[in-house]
Amino acid sequence: MEIMGEKINTSRKSVAAAVQDRDAAFIQDLARRQMEAGATYLDVNSGLALHPEEEAADFAWLVPLIQGVDDLPLCIDSARVQAIETALQLHQGRAMLNSVSGDPAQLEAILPLAKQHRCKLIALTSSKEKGIPATSADRVEIAQKIAQEAAGHGIPLEDIYFDPFVLTLSTDQQNGLVFLETLREIKRVLPGAKTVSGLSNISFGLPKRRLINQVFLVLAVGSGMDAAILDPTDKEMMAMLRATETLLGKDPYCVQYLKAFRAGRFEY
Amino acid sequence: MEIMGEKINTSRKSVAAAVQDRDAAFIQDLARRQMEAGATYLDVNSGLALHPEEEAADFAWLVPLIQGVDDLPLCIDSARVQAIETALQLHQGRAMLNSVSGDPAQLEAILPLAKQHRCKLIALTSSKEKGIPATSADRVEIAQKIAQEAAGHGIPLEDIYFDPFVLTLSTDQQNGLVFLETLREIKRVLPGAKTVSGLSNISFGLPKRRLINQVFLVLAVGSGMDAAILDPTDKEMMAMLRATETLLGKDPYCVQYLKAFRAGRFEY
Repeated sequence: MEIMGEKINTSRKSVAAAVQDRDAAFIQDLARRQMEAGATYLDVNSGLALHPEEEAADFAWLVPLIQGVDDLPLCIDSARVQAIETALQLHQGRAMLNSVSGDPAQLEAILPLAKQHRCKLIALTSSKEKGIPATSADRVEIAQKIAQEAAGHGIPLEDIYFDPFVLTLSTDQQNGLVFLETLREIKRVLPGAKTVSGLSNISFGLPKRRLINQVFLVLAVGSGMDAAILDPTDKEMMAMLRATETLLGKDPYCVQYLKAFRAGRFEY
Repeated sequence: MEIMGEKINTSRKSVAAAVQDRDAAFIQDLARRQMEAGATYLDVNSGLALHPEEEAADFAWLVPLIQGVDDLPLCIDSARVQAIETALQLHQGRAMLNSVSGDPAQLEAILPLAKQHRCKLIALTSSKEKGIPATSADRVEIAQKIAQEAAGHGIPLEDIYFDPFVLTLSTDQQNGLVFLETLREIKRVLPGAKTVSGLSNISFGLPKRRLINQVFLVLAVGSGMDAAILDPTDKEMMAMLRATETLLGKDPYCVQYLKAFRAGRFEY
């Protein structure tokens, strides 16, 4: 299971300030803490930058800085080709790109870059044309189109993490179910493909959001989700995740569970 | 989703003493608290009784006493025909029997009683001959035999809650997976059949047992489990269950979730 640490994101005020001020110690500390807590990728987002050159400059600073802490691969979280290109030129090892959607122009721009740099890809099951489809079938159709395009560029299915798209439960109470169905269906019709999601959208507008997010993670992993974008320093969330993997038979002799427990990584 | 309150069980010292001393207030309080916390059945077990007549006498006292608190149906948790018969003669409404297994002699003894009193049934996917089979396929085979026998006695599939049998994860790390596979497979090959399980066996021998039990509940309900035998006064566990049902689209407008939250039934 891949755990993508979500904390290096300029939508968080303290991170925005640190990037603005080029506060290397702050960013490296955030990287280190997520890594020590169990992250296998670190997401890096500087989406507040107004101009492409500014975002590219942010990545030019961030990528070597964060990879200087450890050799964890990064998840380059950007919509701008210039920023992505800059990040990939500096990145050591295989990065992940977050994200493409079913939009043909975007795929044409990003897929060659992904191929050239041997990136893994997060692919949203949405498109400019169709928006975020309401049904699982329509989302899976977009996933199939992306898979086909990617194959055309020589990117194997195993390197694509499809995001089934989680929408808020308080708006439509079928949104959790549609997510889980889409996830299972993608894995059925595209064998070998991976799946990924963030967690917090689901609970917007409900009380006890942490509870909903945690249970959502367990249900998603129980349905076969391969990666989660989350805060790995959230010990309760990580305890849930370890317990889920152990219950799903992915932890021989419960070694990972016991190790995490003994290291004090659980808060429960 | 059926919630079977598990607390009236003489394997708990305080309950054994209360049954021994015919402490009506203690038992009724236990019944009331479970009911108020959301139980839809109350399990009643007096399995420490040495003789069948003693257990029958316990049920003769317990059944009207507990049903005097509320009209909740009871889950008569006994292996002895005499005790079951006594309980069913006194029970108001449709009781549940906990439990039969694939053992032919037991089925011959219990099924006519279940039919006569229109009981629902918990059926373990084990038998004297085969023990608790290691594989999902062998457990499902026992479920199919029980379903067939029950149909022969005029008991419909909808009234049977199959228990896929949860074994300890620390002994074999595939036990959680075998449970979930058995559950899904029973629901696939016996459409209309219900499923049920207790939660605590899974975590025996591991640290943070509550964590494992809670995640196990979420995974089981996510796989379609229809009923759980648990302590409904455990607010954390119930919060998990409500969140799971809400996420699975079983809670229009999130009404149950919000109601439970406002009533202070969540501890999270």
